Amino acid sequence: MMPKGYKGVQFKVPKLRAAMSRKVTFNPYGITARVEEGENLLHAALDAGVHIDASCGGEGVCGKCKILLESGEIDTVHSELLSAEDWALGFRQACQSRIRSDVVLRIPALSLLDSRTITRRRSGLVLRPASIDLDDLQRAGLYDPAFQKRFVTLPPLTPSNTISDLSRLKEGLGRQHGLKEITLDFHLVRKLGLVLREKDFQATATLDFSRRRYVHPHLLNVEPGDTTLRHFAFAVDIGTTTVWVQLIDIAKGEIMGHAADYNGQLSYGDDIITRIVFSQKEQGLEKLQHAAASNINQLMHRLLERYRVSIDEISHVTIAANTTMTHLFYGIDPRHLRLPPYTPTVRNVPLARARDMGLETPAHIFINCVSSISSFVGGDIVAGILASGIYKDPKLTLYIDIGTNGEIVIGNKDWLACAACSAGPAFEGGGVQFGMRAMGGAIEDVSINPKTFEPMIITVEMLKPKGICGSGLINLLAALMESNLLDPNGKFSSSSKTSRIRMGENGREYVLARAPDTQIGQDITLSEADIDNLMRAKAAMFAGYVTLLDNVGLTFEDIEQVILAGGFGSYVNIENAIAIGLLPDLPRDRFQFVGNGSLQGATFLAMSRELLSEERRVAAIMTNFDLSETPGFMNNYIAAMFLPHTQMQYFPTVIERMNYRY
Amino acid sequence: MMPKGYKGVQFKVPKLRAAMSRKVTFNPYGITARVEEGENLLHAALDAGVHIDASCGGEGVCGKCKILLESGEIDTVHSELLSAEDWALGFRQACQSRIRSDVVLRIPALSLLDSRTITRRRSGLVLRPASIDLDDLQRAGLYDPAFQKRFVTLPPLTPSNTISDLSRLKEGLGRQHGLKEITLDFHLVRKLGLVLREKDFQATATLDFSRRRYVHPHLLNVEPGDTTLRHFAFAVDIGTTTVWVQLIDIAKGEIMGHAADYNGQLSYGDDIITRIVFSQKEQGLEKLQHAAASNINQLMHRLLERYRVSIDEISHVTIAANTTMTHLFYGIDPRHLRLPPYTPTVRNVPLARARDMGLETPAHIFINCVSSISSFVGGDIVAGILASGIYKDPKLTLYIDIGTNGEIVIGNKDWLACAACSAGPAFEGGGVQFGMRAMGGAIEDVSINPKTFEPMIITVEMLKPKGICGSGLINLLAALMESNLLDPNGKFSSSSKTSRIRMGENGREYVLARAPDTQIGQDITLSEADIDNLMRAKAAMFAGYVTLLDNVGLTFEDIEQVILAGGFGSYVNIENAIAIGLLPDLPRDRFQFVGNGSLQGATFLAMSRELLSEERRVAAIMTNFDLSETPGFMNNYIAAMFLPHTQMQYFPTVIERMNYRY
Repeated sequence: MMPKGYKGVQFKVPKLRAAMSRKVTFNPYGITARVEEGENLLHAALDAGVHIDASCGGEGVCGKCKILLESGEIDTVHSELLSAEDWALGFRQACQSRIRSDVVLRIPALSLLDSRTITRRRSGLVLRPASIDLDDLQRAGLYDPAFQKRFVTLPPLTPSNTISDLSRLKEGLGRQHGLKEITLDFHLVRKLGLVLREKDFQATATLDFSRRRYVHPHLLNVEPGDTTLRHFAFAVDIGTTTVWVQLIDIAKGEIMGHAADYNGQLSYGDDIITRIVFSQKEQGLEKLQHAAASNINQLMHRLLERYRVSIDEISHVTIAANTTMTHLFYGIDPRHLRLPPYTPTVRNVPLARARDMGLETPAHIFINCVSSISSFVGGDIVAGILASGIYKDPKLTLYIDIGTNGEIVIGNKDWLACAACSAGPAFEGGGVQFGMRAMGGAIEDVSINPKTFEPMIITVEMLKPKGICGSGLINLLAALMESNLLDPNGKFSSSSKTSRIRMGENGREYVLARAPDTQIGQDITLSEADIDNLMRAKAAMFAGYVTLLDNVGLTFEDIEQVILAGGFGSYVNIENAIAIGLLPDLPRDRFQFVGNGSLQGATFLAMSRELLSEERRVAAIMTNFDLSETPGFMNNYIAAMFLPHTQMQYFPTVIERMNYRY
Repeated sequence: MMPKGYKGVQFKVPKLRAAMSRKVTFNPYGITARVEEGENLLHAALDAGVHIDASCGGEGVCGKCKILLESGEIDTVHSELLSAEDWALGFRQACQSRIRSDVVLRIPALSLLDSRTITRRRSGLVLRPASIDLDDLQRAGLYDPAFQKRFVTLPPLTPSNTISDLSRLKEGLGRQHGLKEITLDFHLVRKLGLVLREKDFQATATLDFSRRRYVHPHLLNVEPGDTTLRHFAFAVDIGTTTVWVQLIDIAKGEIMGHAADYNGQLSYGDDIITRIVFSQKEQGLEKLQHAAASNINQLMHRLLERYRVSIDEISHVTIAANTTMTHLFYGIDPRHLRLPPYTPTVRNVPLARARDMGLETPAHIFINCVSSISSFVGGDIVAGILASGIYKDPKLTLYIDIGTNGEIVIGNKDWLACAACSAGPAFEGGGVQFGMRAMGGAIEDVSINPKTFEPMIITVEMLKPKGICGSGLINLLAALMESNLLDPNGKFSSSSKTSRIRMGENGREYVLARAPDTQIGQDITLSEADIDNLMRAKAAMFAGYVTLLDNVGLTFEDIEQVILAGGFGSYVNIENAIAIGLLPDLPRDRFQFVGNGSLQGATFLAMSRELLSEERRVAAIMTNFDLSETPGFMNNYIAAMFLPHTQMQYFPTVIERMNYRY
C-alpha cells in the first residue's frame, strides 16, 4: 500500500554546480567560486561566468586557455604548448588542470574579458539530470516489482504422491508462499521435469504479480535451486534517434547501468514520416522492425557481458517509445499514424513474447510496453509522467520532453493534458549542419568574448570538437544573442566586424571552431539556416505551452513546477534555454531536468507494480490536444519565431539580461 | 444453464442389425431375418448366424460363397467364377449380391452347416459406434461453444474520434454485444489496422469465452466484414497408433467429417515405452514431436481441402491424447512417465499457440488440451468421460477404452475411479502376427463351420484379406472356442483333424485364409503365441474391472451401464467379446459402443463451454489406481488367463452358450 500523502516518486533536485567544496578565485575580477575538488579549471571558469578563450573543446591541443596559477595546488600536465619559461612563471592550461586545494588564478590579458561580462547571470541554473532515488522509492513502499522470485522446497516423490510436477510446484508455492490459482505460460512446462529434479526438487519460480494483466499470479519461469538473489530486468527506450537499454537488478533494487546506440532505423530515414513511408515498401516494415530488435539485442548483450548477467536471469523487458517507434518495433503497420485523422492501431500493446519480436531471449521473457496516448504522444511521455510522479502531485506541472519531437504535458494529480509540438529534431542535432548527439567531441558549452568574439568551447569528454549537441546549440544561441552578434530575428548582424562571422553556403555563419582545432578537419559553424531550424523548433515548443495553457484556461503564472526531459546530453543550462525562448521565463527553482524520462519511467515500471497498475489509468485520463487542429496555435507559433519572443512581456528576466549587456 | 435433470450428453444407442426392412429367408434352415434393402448377402447371412464358406473376405475372387436364389430380387455380378450353367440355375456369389426385395435363398450342400449351428446366439448384440447427437446437445442447452464470432459495425473515423483501432473495436464489442474488459492476444494487433479498414470498419471478431482460461472474453482474431457463418474448429485425438482429426462447423453446430492416419511416431517405436526410450536419444524428442505435428498438419489440410474451408476460418484446436502422446506432442520430456513413481510433468497443459508446436496455422490459433489424470490415464479418457456424460449420470457406469492400452473408469456423477490396465496393443493388432488396424482388407468378422472347420470371413470394405483387426480377433477367438478347436487355456486341440490347424513357427496355428485368397500372398493365421498375447490383454482388462470394483467395494451386479470406447473398427460383437472374457457377462442392453471416445470428447469440448468448464473438475475428482500397486491385481490377472475365465461363475451366459455347442 501507498503511504498516506505520498505524492509519487520524486526526482532529487540536483544541486547547483556552484555549491562546491574548494574555493577558486579568478583574478583580476576577484570572482570567487566554490567548486568540487578535482573539477576541471575550464569548466570551473565557465560555470563562474569567466571567459577563457578555448578552441579545442578541452583536449589541450590549442594551447589558448592559459591561466596563471597564483596560489594553491592543481593537478596538471606540462605539454609542449607551454614553453619552459611560461611553465616557470606559473602558466598552466586551464583545460588540463584539476583543482586540488583552494586556488587563486589570474586570467592573462589575451583571455581577459570586459569586466561587465563577468557579472552576467551565466551560471544561474545548470541542471544535470536527476538520478532515480531508489531509497525514496523504497521508503515510499513503492519498491515492489511485479516480477518476483520465490524459492520452494518441494516434498520428495513417493509412490503415493505422483501428482504432476506442475501440480507439485503449484502446491509448494501455495504452501510456502500462500500463492493460489497460479496461471502459467506453456513454455515453462517443457523444461519443468528436469529443472525440478536438477536440485532435488528445490527450485525458484519467477512470477508476474501485476494484476493489470493477470488476475492471478502468473508463473513464467522456474530454475533449479535458489536463484532469488539473481533476478534482473531490462528497461528500454526506443527513441527515433537513439535506443537506450538499462539493466536493473530487481533482487537488489538497483540500476546496474545502461548502454545506448543510434537507432538502426536511421539508415531508412531520419524522421518518423520518412520511416512510415519506408515501411510501406516491400519488406520495409520487416526491415524497420528488425533494425530496432537488432539495436536492443546488441545493447542487451553489451550490458549482460559488462555486468556478468546471463540472459536467463532476466525476467522481463519494459519498453517505452513514441507511438511510431512502438508500432515499428512490434511490426504493426504504422501507415494510419500519418494519415488523417491520425489513428494509432494500438495504444496499449498486449504482452508479447520477446523472441517473437526478434529479441534473442529465452521463451520466458515477455515485453511490457508502456501505453501511448495518441499517434503523436507516446509511451515515452507516459513513462516520464509516471516516473516524475506528476500524476500524484497536487502541484500544477509542465512536463516538457524535447527529443526528436517535442511533447508537452500540463496537469497534476487531478487532470492531465498533452500535446505533440512537431518541433523536429533540431535539439538532437538534426537539421543543423554540424549538429550531433551529445557524444565525445560534441560542443556542449560555449562562451563568446563580447569584445573579440572569440569562443570558449567545452566538449563532451573534452575531446577535439566534432560538432554541436543540443545543449551546445542552446548555449551557443544564447551566447550569440548576448554578444550582440545575433539579432532577435535570428540573423547575424551585418555590422559586426569579426572574422568569426562570414558568408557561407547557407547565409551568414559563425565559425565556432576552425578546421585545425577539430576532429573533422573542417570549420564547425552555425549558419542562419541552422538558426532558422532551431527557431522553428523552439517556437513550436513555446507555441505548444501557450496553446495548451490557453485551452485549459491557465497561464504561465499558474505553473508551479517544470520538468524537463529529453536528449540534451548530460545537462541543460536553464538560463540559456529561457534566453532563446525555448523554456518559459519562470522562477528558476521551479525547473528540474530528468534526462531520459522515458527510460527512467520504463525502469520504474519494472520496479513497482503500483506504478504498473497506474500506467493505464494515467494514459486513460490524459486529454490529447491535436495542436494543428487547436485554435490559436498558428498565431502562437508565428509570435514565437523571434529571440526570445515577439511578446517580450513573457520574458522579463531575459529583457533584463539582454539590456544589461549594452 | 443446464436444464434440470439433464444427465449429460447421451450417445444414441444404435439399433441392432437384425431390425431391417426386407425379409431374407435362408433355406434349408427356414431362418428368416429382416435386413435393410441394399445389404450384402454375406453380411446378412453372418448376422443371421448362417455360415457360408467364404475365403476372400468378400472381394468375390474365391468363388466359394455360392448361394441359390429361389425367389426375389438382388443386385449382383456375373463373374467368371460362376459358369453359365450355374448362373442359369440361379447360383449367385453371396458376397457380390445386394438385397433389393424380400428374398428366399438356399445354402448349397457345400456350405451347409449342422443344423445346430444356426441356433447359436450369433447375432446377440453387434454394436456400431454411436454418433454424436447434436440435437440432444442443443436441446440440453449445451451447444454453446467457448469460441464465438461477433460481427461489429464501428463508427467512422473523424478528427474528433481518433482513439486507437483497438479501442474502437473494443468499444464496438461493448456497445453492440455487451462485452466488457476484453483481453487479447498480441498477434491480432499486427493486422488490425488493415483488417478494420478493408470493409470500412465492419468486421468480425473471434472471442474465447471460456472462463476456465480467461476471466474476461479473450479476443483472438478479427476478420473483415461479416464472417460469423464461417467458423470452424478442429478436434484431434492422438492415439499411440492412430491420429484422428475431426473438422467441426462451429457456426452451424455440425461435425463436417474426419480423417485419420497412422501415428508417424510408429517409425520410432510401436509402443509408448519404446518411444519414451527413443525420446532420450539425440534429437529424439524433436523427431517424435515433429512426427505428431506432421500427422496433424496432413490430416487438417486433407479436411480443409475436402470441405473447402480455409485454415484462417479455424478458431482453435482441441487435442485429447494419452499422457505420453500429450507429452510428446508438446515436446515435453516424457522420461519421468516411465520411471517410478511415474510422474507426469503436467496434467493440465496450458494453452499453447498452435504454430509454436509446429502446426501450420495462423497466429490466432491456440491449442486446448484435455487434462490427464496420471501417467497412464490420459486426456483421451477424460474426453471420453465428458462426451459420454457419465460425470453427470446417477447410473453406476463402467467405461472401458480398449486401444493401444486399456483404461477403465468406474463411477457416476458423485465419484469416479480409474485405472490403466497395461493391456498392450493386441486388440489394435499389435503383438499378433497378422494383426492390423481396421482398414480395407482387415478380417473383421469370422464364422467357422463346426464340421469342416472352414471359415467364413468378411473383411473391411470386402477386399481380399490382409490381416485381422481387433473385432476380427475377438470374433475369431470366439468362433475357435465355439467350434471346439481351442481349449480354455488358449491351446489348439491336438485331436482336431483339419488341415486348417497345423504346426507353425510359433506353435500350432489356425489358417484363416490361404495365400492365393489374400492380398499379401501368404497364409493368414492365428497362432497360439498370438492367442497368448490376446489372452494377456483381455486378462489385464478383466483383472482391472475386478480389482477396481473390489477397491471401491462394488461387484459387477452393481454396474448399470457399460460404455465401450476404442479402436475396434466400425463395430464390436458384444456377445463374442463376452465369450472370450474381455467384457463382463452383463445384460446386453447395458452395453454401448461409442467408437473413438477421445475424438468425440475433444469435439464436444469445442462445442460446449459448459463441458469445458467441467473438464478440470472431472479430471480433479477422478481417483487414479495404480493397479501394479493395488492388492489383488496379480491374482485377478492370473485368474483371468483362461477362456473366458477360471471362475466360470462370472460368465453364466457363456457357459450356457458353450455347453450348447456339444
